[in-house]
Amino acid sequence: MSRPGEIDEERLAAALKAGDRRALAQAITLVESTRPDHRRAAERMLDAVLPGPVDTIRLGISGVPGVGKSTFIEAFGRMLIERGHRIAVLAIDPSSKRGGGSILGDKTRMAELGRSDAAFIRPSPTRGALGGVARRTREAILLCEAAGFDVAIVETVGVGQSETAVADLVDMFVLLLQPGGGDELQGMKKGIVELADLIVVNKADGDLADAAARTVADYRNALRLLRCASPDWRTEIIPVSALTGSGVDAVWDAIDRRRAAVAASGALEHRRREQARQALWAELGEALVEALRGDASIRRLVPEVERRVMAGRASPSAAARDLLERFLGRPA
Amino acid sequence: MSRPGEIDEERLAAALKAGDRRALAQAITLVESTRPDHRRAAERMLDAVLPGPVDTIRLGISGVPGVGKSTFIEAFGRMLIERGHRIAVLAIDPSSKRGGGSILGDKTRMAELGRSDAAFIRPSPTRGALGGVARRTREAILLCEAAGFDVAIVETVGVGQSETAVADLVDMFVLLLQPGGGDELQGMKKGIVELADLIVVNKADGDLADAAARTVADYRNALRLLRCASPDWRTEIIPVSALTGSGVDAVWDAIDRRRAAVAASGALEHRRREQARQALWAELGEALVEALRGDASIRRLVPEVERRVMAGRASPSAAARDLLERFLGRPA
Repeated sequence: MSRPGEIDEERLAAALKAGDRRALAQAITLVESTRPDHRRAAERMLDAVLPGPVDTIRLGISGVPGVGKSTFIEAFGRMLIERGHRIAVLAIDPSSKRGGGSILGDKTRMAELGRSDAAFIRPSPTRGALGGVARRTREAILLCEAAGFDVAIVETVGVGQSETAVADLVDMFVLLLQPGGGDELQGMKKGIVELADLIVVNKADGDLADAAARTVADYRNALRLLRCASPDWRTEIIPVSALTGSGVDAVWDAIDRRRAAVAASGALEHRRREQARQALWAELGEALVEALRGDASIRRLVPEVERRVMAGRASPSAAARDLLERFLGRPA
Repeated sequence: MSRPGEIDEERLAAALKAGDRRALAQAITLVESTRPDHRRAAERMLDAVLPGPVDTIRLGISGVPGVGKSTFIEAFGRMLIERGHRIAVLAIDPSSKRGGGSILGDKTRMAELGRSDAAFIRPSPTRGALGGVARRTREAILLCEAAGFDVAIVETVGVGQSETAVADLVDMFVLLLQPGGGDELQGMKKGIVELADLIVVNKADGDLADAAARTVADYRNALRLLRCASPDWRTEIIPVSALTGSGVDAVWDAIDRRRAAVAASGALEHRRREQARQALWAELGEALVEALRGDASIRRLVPEVERRVMAGRASPSAAARDLLERFLGRPA
């Protein structure tokens, strides 16, 4: 594989649109690069493949380590491929810096799915701030769709701040749980259960089958008290055994039913258009702050300004105005 | 009351620190003003009163209309005053533009509390974007504390995007519910129940007493499945009758206990320092985007750029870079 710097983005865009998985992998490497010339090439390439197909599904799937996420995605992906879909799996793993490796870095994960031409599996990028990762994941989804993958899954471990960002990238957010009392949620982001459009209780097999049924009933009751998701959708809770494959079809049926409903009502298109508009302003805001932080004269001042604000000796607004006026070189 | 433009902010800061409620009201009017000269005066005044006292409590209280929020806050406030506290109530009401009036505009609300010298009640500002309202509410809290009000309550109706912003302004977030099956949460922000540090089930009196007890038990069960709040705090659920006053003491005891624990561990100071730092960067980000939006050459381009991005014909990142380079007058 050539390095991104050597890539001709027009050739890459053409190969990608022809469904070439190697070209897709190279294209994602290009959008993940922070080198300024790579960013420009990535943007030209994106504009060359846009607009992509609209008849796609973008899913967020979250769950703590040990819940059986890879086993579920493998079973789910195989089922989708049998039904004629092409599936892309992208991982966001804010904890990878701690653990030393990406959650998808392990080659043995989703081994069977990875061998299929109808699947594309992308390990988590290991560097960069989360905001940046979410922005680039948005672009990676667009690239996967342009390459003909009609189901894009963004996988997260749910321990960080990533879930809200991911919920803003996708059409539906799926939370994976296991039989039990919710202990596994300890450490997950607040509000994640309510964020879910669909809850999958995995490991509903063998000794855990009864416990899984109880967990489904418990969450159904709990969600009745929290049913503030969307007026037209009541969060479904589905027991699944990723091991035996039981229930995996039901998950897809629920997603497909939901997608058909929001596509017919126009809510899906509206949501995606709003997500794109918000991404524009988020990019602008982040890029402006980056430009300010990158300014040599500002950078010198930041530590002392932060100290004063954190000690309550200066108001954030006055401190912000002072930095802003220095950056813009005029009254703000 | 003189108009903000005529105010001498040094005199105002001195009067405010002496506990003058009229000065406090004028000072908040000043921080809510968007006029550039008022903003500067407001920032000078803030810096003159900072740092304020640290032995204070900042509470967010949320609940839909009809849940009995004002009755609860009145009973709660009276009890606090009897215990020697001074209480300030600030409202954020993103829906006031729709309804034509502020939730606190009605003079009859909290009439008794409003007559006490130990209470300060501030109606919701009726204009401005929510981000701006949250920023100014942060400053209003600091002013109330500087004026000797040691308990600041930020009241929201929970239907908008304000709760996350408010949770970032306060030490604890309290959600008011009424007996029933959670139907009232319909339309509230997703994740609000999980956001709560404390849930108060109001109307636990008369015919509704039994239903309230059931609701408390139901939420206790539900939260067991969602207990991802903070490792050192299990969300408490307390039945209350704002009408008879029963349970109001228990709410304060829970808040006070929690405050003592986080103050002793250093978590409270850490949280407030982080909130201040984040407020600095949020101010900077918002001010930068405002400066960009206010640029005449950018403003002309925005509608067409948004259309292209929303139609999926341009990537947010390329569109953002293009606007940014025009704004900064150099490659970004």
